[in-house]
Amino acid sequence: MLLDKYKSTRKLSEEIASLMTAEDMQLQSMPDASPVKWHLAHTTWFFETFILKNVKGYQPFREHFNVLFNSYYNSVGEQFKRPSRGVLSRPAVQEILDYRLYIDEAMHKYLAGEISAEERAIITLGINHEQQHQELMFTDIKHAFSLNPLFPALIQCQYTDGPVQSLKYISIDGGLYECGADAEGDFCFDNETPRHSVYVAPFKLASRPVTNGEYAEFIADGGYEDPLLWLSDGWARIKEQGQFCPVYWQGQKGEWSEYTLAGLQTLQPNAPVCHVNYFEACAYATWAGKRLPTEFEWEVVARDQPIEGNLLNLNVLHPQASNHSGATQLFGDVWEWTSSAYGAYPGYQPARGALGEYNSKFMAGQYVLRGGSCATPPGHIRSTYRNFFYPHSDWQFSGIRLASD
Amino acid sequence: MLLDKYKSTRKLSEEIASLMTAEDMQLQSMPDASPVKWHLAHTTWFFETFILKNVKGYQPFREHFNVLFNSYYNSVGEQFKRPSRGVLSRPAVQEILDYRLYIDEAMHKYLAGEISAEERAIITLGINHEQQHQELMFTDIKHAFSLNPLFPALIQCQYTDGPVQSLKYISIDGGLYECGADAEGDFCFDNETPRHSVYVAPFKLASRPVTNGEYAEFIADGGYEDPLLWLSDGWARIKEQGQFCPVYWQGQKGEWSEYTLAGLQTLQPNAPVCHVNYFEACAYATWAGKRLPTEFEWEVVARDQPIEGNLLNLNVLHPQASNHSGATQLFGDVWEWTSSAYGAYPGYQPARGALGEYNSKFMAGQYVLRGGSCATPPGHIRSTYRNFFYPHSDWQFSGIRLASD
Amino acid sequence: MLLDKYKSTRKLSEEIASLMTAEDMQLQSMPDASPVKWHLAHTTWFFETFILKNVKGYQPFREHFNVLFNSYYNSVGEQFKRPSRGVLSRPAVQEILDYRLYIDEAMHKYLAGEISAEERAIITLGINHEQQHQELMFTDIKHAFSLNPLFPALIQCQYTDGPVQSLKYISIDGGLYECGADAEGDFCFDNETPRHSVYVAPFKLASRPVTNGEYAEFIADGGYEDPLLWLSDGWARIKEQGQFCPVYWQGQKGEWSEYTLAGLQTLQPNAPVCHVNYFEACAYATWAGKRLPTEFEWEVVARDQPIEGNLLNLNVLHPQASNHSGATQLFGDVWEWTSSAYGAYPGYQPARGALGEYNSKFMAGQYVLRGGSCATPPGHIRSTYRNFFYPHSDWQFSGIRLASD
Amino acid sequence: MLLDKYKSTRKLSEEIASLMTAEDMQLQSMPDASPVKWHLAHTTWFFETFILKNVKGYQPFREHFNVLFNSYYNSVGEQFKRPSRGVLSRPAVQEILDYRLYIDEAMHKYLAGEISAEERAIITLGINHEQQHQELMFTDIKHAFSLNPLFPALIQCQYTDGPVQSLKYISIDGGLYECGADAEGDFCFDNETPRHSVYVAPFKLASRPVTNGEYAEFIADGGYEDPLLWLSDGWARIKEQGQFCPVYWQGQKGEWSEYTLAGLQTLQPNAPVCHVNYFEACAYATWAGKRLPTEFEWEVVARDQPIEGNLLNLNVLHPQASNHSGATQLFGDVWEWTSSAYGAYPGYQPARGALGEYNSKFMAGQYVLRGGSCATPPGHIRSTYRNFFYPHSDWQFSGIRLASD
Repeated sequence: MLLDKYKSTRKLSEEIASLMTAEDMQLQSMPDASPVKWHLAHTTWFFETFILKNVKGYQPFREHFNVLFNSYYNSVGEQFKRPSRGVLSRPAVQEILDYRLYIDEAMHKYLAGEISAEERAIITLGINHEQQHQELMFTDIKHAFSLNPLFPALIQCQYTDGPVQSLKYISIDGGLYECGADAEGDFCFDNETPRHSVYVAPFKLASRPVTNGEYAEFIADGGYEDPLLWLSDGWARIKEQGQFCPVYWQGQKGEWSEYTLAGLQTLQPNAPVCHVNYFEACAYATWAGKRLPTEFEWEVVARDQPIEGNLLNLNVLHPQASNHSGATQLFGDVWEWTSSAYGAYPGYQPARGALGEYNSKFMAGQYVLRGGSCATPPGHIRSTYRNFFYPHSDWQFSGIRLASD
Repeated sequence: MLLDKYKSTRKLSEEIASLMTAEDMQLQSMPDASPVKWHLAHTTWFFETFILKNVKGYQPFREHFNVLFNSYYNSVGEQFKRPSRGVLSRPAVQEILDYRLYIDEAMHKYLAGEISAEERAIITLGINHEQQHQELMFTDIKHAFSLNPLFPALIQCQYTDGPVQSLKYISIDGGLYECGADAEGDFCFDNETPRHSVYVAPFKLASRPVTNGEYAEFIADGGYEDPLLWLSDGWARIKEQGQFCPVYWQGQKGEWSEYTLAGLQTLQPNAPVCHVNYFEACAYATWAGKRLPTEFEWEVVARDQPIEGNLLNLNVLHPQASNHSGATQLFGDVWEWTSSAYGAYPGYQPARGALGEYNSKFMAGQYVLRGGSCATPPGHIRSTYRNFFYPHSDWQFSGIRLASD
Repeated sequence: MLLDKYKSTRKLSEEIASLMTAEDMQLQSMPDASPVKWHLAHTTWFFETFILKNVKGYQPFREHFNVLFNSYYNSVGEQFKRPSRGVLSRPAVQEILDYRLYIDEAMHKYLAGEISAEERAIITLGINHEQQHQELMFTDIKHAFSLNPLFPALIQCQYTDGPVQSLKYISIDGGLYECGADAEGDFCFDNETPRHSVYVAPFKLASRPVTNGEYAEFIADGGYEDPLLWLSDGWARIKEQGQFCPVYWQGQKGEWSEYTLAGLQTLQPNAPVCHVNYFEACAYATWAGKRLPTEFEWEVVARDQPIEGNLLNLNVLHPQASNHSGATQLFGDVWEWTSSAYGAYPGYQPARGALGEYNSKFMAGQYVLRGGSCATPPGHIRSTYRNFFYPHSDWQFSGIRLASD
Repeated sequence: MLLDKYKSTRKLSEEIASLMTAEDMQLQSMPDASPVKWHLAHTTWFFETFILKNVKGYQPFREHFNVLFNSYYNSVGEQFKRPSRGVLSRPAVQEILDYRLYIDEAMHKYLAGEISAEERAIITLGINHEQQHQELMFTDIKHAFSLNPLFPALIQCQYTDGPVQSLKYISIDGGLYECGADAEGDFCFDNETPRHSVYVAPFKLASRPVTNGEYAEFIADGGYEDPLLWLSDGWARIKEQGQFCPVYWQGQKGEWSEYTLAGLQTLQPNAPVCHVNYFEACAYATWAGKRLPTEFEWEVVARDQPIEGNLLNLNVLHPQASNHSGATQLFGDVWEWTSSAYGAYPGYQPARGALGEYNSKFMAGQYVLRGGSCATPPGHIRSTYRNFFYPHSDWQFSGIRLASD
């Protein structure tokens, strides 16, 4: 069963890659993004480094891949510098696909044998790690394509708007809640642990994310021109960049279009607003007289909901309007910014060894997002899952859900 | 009594200024710092803008001061750009002192009359605001002087080391605690409110701050060379800057000296380490096998302690070793970094009007420090007080207190 | 004959491209360089824009190519921003080759007809323009490859050192010389005209370029550590970048290797030093007690020499030692820095219309290089040819020839 | 007589300083500018370093001044970093004035004795050096004051426009001219030597500089919006900075005012345009269908003119309209940009020793300006004098004189 999961995950990465040309996969449009070919290699490097290199008799595919495809594991050794990944035209995509094949064969053989619980845990982590990079393949190529004046379409799709439920607020009682994940249970990342008590005051959570139409009203009302709505760093940023709408929007009042993975399309008013950063999310909430939820408020509501929604579907890849009732779209569509800074839970211990670098060293200056997006592989998300990005980051499929006291 | 407080606060600012020449007061050594003359004017502008301009018949001292000395209040109008404050040789220090006199006379007259509760609150805020800037006068001139190869001494003082208590850990029970301040009580900033329930797990807090001697051991043990001890952003920063010790330290192992407001002095091993940033504080804690406390853990311990310690004293201005027993030096000496990101408490409402910009718009990307320092005016600090700076900031008198689960 | 020249030039570009993968051709490693696929398209755009668009009935290949592949001709319209050329994975290399085919067919047809002298001149300019970009294809891919830790080899070649003539100085009489090209003669760029009188004082010119071995002596003698040898801007630059040898050298004294288009190779002491910038060239000359020649001194000697040497040869692509006697290697091997700032000759008139932007607007801050290099197509160079680059530029095949009074 | 010249020059520096407060003299508004107090000290350091330190028994005033006030002489030793000069509030202005007194007394004594020709030459150089810094005191404080929204006036003066001669062109015959200065003659800088032959083609030189009124026409005609008028680097710069008029101009068409050392004043149409950079000068010339003169063309005309004009006068300090006939205003008013890149004359030898760093290491990337300005001390300028600045520099009193073939 782990083998099946391994195989299907590896296959999905290659399906994603098959949507692109070798030239596409070469692009790195900013230091935060990586070429898709690099993602293909790095996820493979993960299994080679943390599993196969410990297997007696294993011969590495290429010695120098250890440096080229190490992302940030100082325990493992040096890393090729991140902002220059886009210069690596060699190894070619084909060589990287050969690398994948070589590792997959070794892994298939390995997985057919006796595996300790600890090794199973690392392989499961490797699978989840690859799923995270699947989402990044989309967000990174989307950023690069968005800078091309031809606005290339990765997939062919004509989005059509649908009805959306009217915005309601779900009231939740205050009290002590157990939040986070139990390390002994199903797979989770170390940053979701330990499960711990949190006192949550009574609050209300919006029944659905903020829509494009609602966000367009904020813009039309002068939202990007009123410093009083913005965090100080956010205001400085939009002034410096002359920003007046979300990063992938184009046009003006009443005539907005949006760059999507299916090309430039007319904005759908009822779909969730997407690719907003934390500053935009907070400014919108202030304008609306509301606030963002904490990550615990979000979790308390989400854990009672089925884990289903507009998750990764190679024919969609964009948030969609939903007309369901109740607490909807908590999973999928858009990652939802919370007001919680990304940090350690009480009693948190990073994983031992190199894998301790996976999550813990990023616990400064970032904010938690919850719920997954339309680019998150099904099966990868859960109510305790903590994604994290800097407040200025907007190249993820990130949106807004409101809350209030 | 408010008049007395007003008078003594205003007088202290001028005593601080009297330690400096007009040339000193002109310096702005980085965008985050301001010239001392600007601090003298801005604190005055505060009373003029928020009190006197509402008084019938009041004539502003100079119309253009409204722009020049507005720090960041967009509600009040435009601001002269912050990084260029150091270019304002005119108005001269003397003209700014005249401005202070003019405002003080108007305020004395005003304070002799009938004052509403709301006005009293604003004046009290203005007094506390000026106290904050008194601390900044020291930290800002210290930064500027530290770049002068002559290492000027603002005051004459020869620091001598004393004994220090051995490091102990105070155990505190877990449970629900009421934290923060009650807006209806004594003066506090809006960001300390509302008082609210927090569940705190059992923890231990160090009985005193980390000393210079202990920090020197961290350095000697390769603390600045091991990426596994550092947050990712912190490691990137020290590599980029070639940093290998705290910003005001000089020399090398066994021969450290430190730039102080009394000039360059031999490092005192038993005094608290000072001018470390959040990254350094976290790296030290990781190396020591501990962690930083949350702001609530700190508060739970501090509220049982007397508010006394090495606070602002024009003859000292540097943290000192303390040999007292128990939970010592929580107040004064050094601001203590906590692991809590600076954000809104549940139910927080910014003050209404322009003064709502005072604290709330900075709630992104910064960390809370607690307890005041050797540059904090006595009477200004309390257990619920929340100071906040970016994780890279090290020009404040900031230090480290350890905690553990 | 113009058709033949057109065909052979176009064919050479495609031969160069055939050495690379589509991924290679996507790379842009710095703003000054362009992806090879962009060079392929831009040179084609030139013929389309300046010839075919004026032909009745011509249908553009793709309307948007006008913006994408316009380099810097403001007269023609907007340009896609230069530093972002590397993000254009679409159009694909294959589409660009289709574009070339489309334009070539139209041009072949066009060239079979009656052509005015003015049109012939523009086509000849377009051919020379494409030759310039052929050299850039090599220099740009070399820069990108040099950043790849695998040091890819574009061609397979093992360079071997040969004997070199001992350095001699050729004495030239002073006097009035006619320099530059006559616009009415064979093809030349507008910046070579008009032919004009220059008074040249008696001087001596080195019989060959400075070799790697000689340059290694300069390094060994502390050349990169002595500020007195350097121009002020050059010294600031090497300090800021920590530079201690030419950009493509690796290793240290006695063990130098050099990145070449045939991969990393042991440095050949007798080959001309290459990829040095103006600052390095001047520093070397000062160390050697000599100076760089002016462009006129160079020209006065070169015009008596046969135009032959180590010019573009797809099997070599690197400067080589030469043991001939006399004034050698003036053409080919390395572009030779002169002390002449790039500017207008007396009486210079830029070409009319858009093509006036070709050369004249770059006449500030750059220096003239003469003689062509091992990447310059044969037939493209002549004694009056003026190449120009900024003093910090070192990614061209640029070297040093000494002179003295 | 050398003593008299020494005394009067030193006195003038102090007269200039007396126009400013200590706070003014502290300002450094950009890396290219220096605080006036630094100029006062550095000019003094020059005499101490190159004369007095060689005098037996001389005791330096302060040891550390050697580093603090060394501008760029690597032969003399380390230098305090240039962009940080503004942070040196200590030593105070008063201490620097004491330094001046100390050096002056030593120099007076020294000058009363027997002095070798070589020493006389160095002292004369020191005097001319101080005169150069006198001009810089004005240009540097002007830049700093221009950033102060109060637009401080250094002097009290109301400028009034006068009549100006209509623009004529003076025709000069082509031929071989001897240009530059003879090192054996009166004082000159090393960069003016040697006197050498230059072939100059027939040309015409404008009889006076371009006026503000003429430049305003260029603006009104869209001069800052047409890329075809600009050098490529200049166009990039004005787009990046959003520049649409000279740096010290304010307002718009028909309502221009200009920041001057006498404060903000209505633009005088007939006064020479001032504070334009090389890019602006070239763009204007292109628009006018003319060009800039070479430095030799300028010199050939200027050497027949009396050295008189609107030179440094503490009551003026701004270019003024002139109604004289003939070749006017060649000296004073504004430095005139030439099309000549700053480089070595044929046969140039830098001065020996440390003073060889004075001029020669700046011979890259700068352009020659001729004729002095309204801030140049009388007696300091001559027809062979070569000033030099980068093409983007506009904080000097720099203007435009046209030429044509």
